[in-house]
Amino acid sequence: MEFWLNEKHTDGYSVNWKFTETLYTGQTEYQHLAIIDTLEFGRALVLDGIIQTTERDEFIYHEMIVHPALMTHPNPQRVLVVGGGDGGTVREVIKYQTVQQADLVEIDEKVIWACRKYLPGISCALSDPKVRILVEDGIKFLKKKENDYDVIIIDSSDPIGPAAGLFGEEFYRDVCKALKEDGILVAQTESPLFNKELLRSVNKILSGIFPVTRTYLTSIATYIGGFWSFTLASKKYDPLLAELDIAKINGMNLKYYNNDIHKACFALPNYIKDLFK
Amino acid sequence: MEFWLNEKHTDGYSVNWKFTETLYTGQTEYQHLAIIDTLEFGRALVLDGIIQTTERDEFIYHEMIVHPALMTHPNPQRVLVVGGGDGGTVREVIKYQTVQQADLVEIDEKVIWACRKYLPGISCALSDPKVRILVEDGIKFLKKKENDYDVIIIDSSDPIGPAAGLFGEEFYRDVCKALKEDGILVAQTESPLFNKELLRSVNKILSGIFPVTRTYLTSIATYIGGFWSFTLASKKYDPLLAELDIAKINGMNLKYYNNDIHKACFALPNYIKDLFK
Repeated sequence: MEFWLNEKHTDGYSVNWKFTETLYTGQTEYQHLAIIDTLEFGRALVLDGIIQTTERDEFIYHEMIVHPALMTHPNPQRVLVVGGGDGGTVREVIKYQTVQQADLVEIDEKVIWACRKYLPGISCALSDPKVRILVEDGIKFLKKKENDYDVIIIDSSDPIGPAAGLFGEEFYRDVCKALKEDGILVAQTESPLFNKELLRSVNKILSGIFPVTRTYLTSIATYIGGFWSFTLASKKYDPLLAELDIAKINGMNLKYYNNDIHKACFALPNYIKDLFK
Repeated sequence: MEFWLNEKHTDGYSVNWKFTETLYTGQTEYQHLAIIDTLEFGRALVLDGIIQTTERDEFIYHEMIVHPALMTHPNPQRVLVVGGGDGGTVREVIKYQTVQQADLVEIDEKVIWACRKYLPGISCALSDPKVRILVEDGIKFLKKKENDYDVIIIDSSDPIGPAAGLFGEEFYRDVCKALKEDGILVAQTESPLFNKELLRSVNKILSGIFPVTRTYLTSIATYIGGFWSFTLASKKYDPLLAELDIAKINGMNLKYYNNDIHKACFALPNYIKDLFK
């Protein structure tokens, strides 16, 4: 007997992952949640039938959502992560000695519970004293904040279900307000191939709010098409002009991000440049 | 009724592509060949059950296998493509005014026939007077050649079936011999995630033969995991030191490759750098 997860990405494209065990499966208040052991990518968190993170390639996503922004900011002390209940993003954030507090605002407590229990390598930092966990709606949380954070990271799931409100102009204006005067926002902005319109829309909205907006790219095999975008928006610092502290990068013993990758990830192919014209 | 191609990549990972029509399917002397119209990626060439190229994203692979090498060589006149019977690679090669002859050595005549008939946007250059088509085994062809080509491009399918011999040391030594004294080789070298050992092996072999060896990366959604590697080996010119002629790049109206991508594609994540240590 064989178990396969069939990820239905579009009407014409789906991916099958063989798995050996289901550690947890259930409906939360917001979504369907499963933890499975896949043959190819190790243990995986699956929300509404789509793989969110796996033991084997989570380092790529989590390093790339964090380090370009945190290395660009000269002195990140207060960092907010919206979403990211698996803990992988805050794990990268607290690698910076300057960071005094990392707030994690996750709407679905059950995601935090399941990742703490079944994915300790990803969720390990959730118990760090610098990390404050707030189980609430990130949209409402940000409305109350002003001039508070150095870096805000939007580590959301796809723009359906609980994350739908995290890709609109009103939300980004609230993020801008919650950032200090030299703050940086970074958001995961989906597949540049399968979700072009969303990427174009986010880039356009952020360009209208922030003086510096830069989309960057990476390859993540477990996401649709294996190609993923992030968009960084900044009130003052430009990641392309940042003087990177190479000793600091090397000291973190990362598996993906390095000085060359920092510069390279912002290089856009012509067809993606054309999206933003 | 629905038609789906199920690409079996590994024991634990497969991808499903919905298709609307089968234009051709049959066994050639070397492999099974099909041409199908997929819902997501347009018309596709499928060899032994694996998608080789699609109308929607072929530009990424074909631009990236050609332009880093052809832009690095200051005066490419004679170019050899081994494999690449779909014609996409020679289409990019003959965009260079310096190129006087592009030889295409494809073992399977039926691939050329099917792509000429069903994929004219990819195969269009096969009728160009600068292109000479030779239906024969690239391994044997190269044994006869010495000091003949400026650039040799190994545009092979996966290292099973007819392409298995195109990834070994003896073959690369023959390629080196067939290149002029300032010649450049570039080869597709598979997925850095799913075929790490092959990539490591090719990089090591080429580093032992050529003074300059550089692996580079790109995202191609229709290949396993969406992440692909190429390895360039050169007798004289280093692509990282090449002074790129930006007017020449812009004049080709490419959809992927540009000056920034040329530099960025050679930036390797730490886990891939570690492969080559």
